[in-house]
Amino acid sequence: MTKGAASRGPFSLMSDNPRKYFEDFRVGDVIHCGRKTVTKDEIIDFAEKFDPQPFHLDEAEAAGSKFGGLVASGWHTCALCMRLVVDAMLKGSANMGSPGVENIRWVKPLRPGNIVSATVRVVEAVPSKSRADRGRLKFAFELTEEAEGLIMEMLATAIYARKPAA
Amino acid sequence: MTKGAASRGPFSLMSDNPRKYFEDFRVGDVIHCGRKTVTKDEIIDFAEKFDPQPFHLDEAEAAGSKFGGLVASGWHTCALCMRLVVDAMLKGSANMGSPGVENIRWVKPLRPGNIVSATVRVVEAVPSKSRADRGRLKFAFELTEEAEGLIMEMLATAIYARKPAA
Repeated sequence: MTKGAASRGPFSLMSDNPRKYFEDFRVGDVIHCGRKTVTKDEIIDFAEKFDPQPFHLDEAEAAGSKFGGLVASGWHTCALCMRLVVDAMLKGSANMGSPGVENIRWVKPLRPGNIVSATVRVVEAVPSKSRADRGRLKFAFELTEEAEGLIMEMLATAIYARKPAA
Repeated sequence: MTKGAASRGPFSLMSDNPRKYFEDFRVGDVIHCGRKTVTKDEIIDFAEKFDPQPFHLDEAEAAGSKFGGLVASGWHTCALCMRLVVDAMLKGSANMGSPGVENIRWVKPLRPGNIVSATVRVVEAVPSKSRADRGRLKFAFELTEEAEGLIMEMLATAIYARKPAA
């Protein structure tokens, strides 16, 4: 869990989640973000819209691929991880958006019936030199499957507003 | 366009797109991947599923955010770019999947009505030392908006099968 004091901001969307500012994160903090079961229909629905390659879309063709069965698009894996992180810590926070992500590693394929959970670790916290109202946080995201272990990892940067003076 | 000979593989899904193998890509090749208009409904639909932060989801709240209006999730931007790349070059190719992506940069926000096109440049082509049937290609993806210019860029790696002996 994150440490540090937290005040409830006027735009918080999560009544049970006090609004988090830049100052509420410390390097080394770990946030556990809940879990989700992935379904075949979700995998195919995402693939139809965004990544219609046969191993993401068609069970028969996927069975003959190097994956040996249907696997989620890597972008679906990222999006599912994001949803877990948004629900647990970004929604209602002072997050102002992200300039980018480093080093996505798709370590193992995500398959129908997999049960995944996300973890976020704070690896950098740097106040902006040019803009006193914000700072940059770097997070290590990990998506882990109950039986398979690590599925995906990445380093994501977010700009967070600093806490207003009391 | 890519250079090099191409043979039609038995699993090609695109009748107008000869199956591309590792050998069909050369460093410096540029592939233009078509374009798409992004709608408000698509932005909100993706956000509801995967990234329900107010600036991706709610026009009124987004208007009061630092973006000044609704913007697509960065993961939606990635997924849209992927779709253009899949349709133009990956679908029906000898692509065996991706181990990961380096350095996604979300340069400008993607907004409703934006018209985006994707470009892929081949930056590395390395035959596998351990497995003679495949090689690693590194691609620079760029997503550009007609009026806004560069929206997103990344470096994506793909494993491609090598061309079977004639």
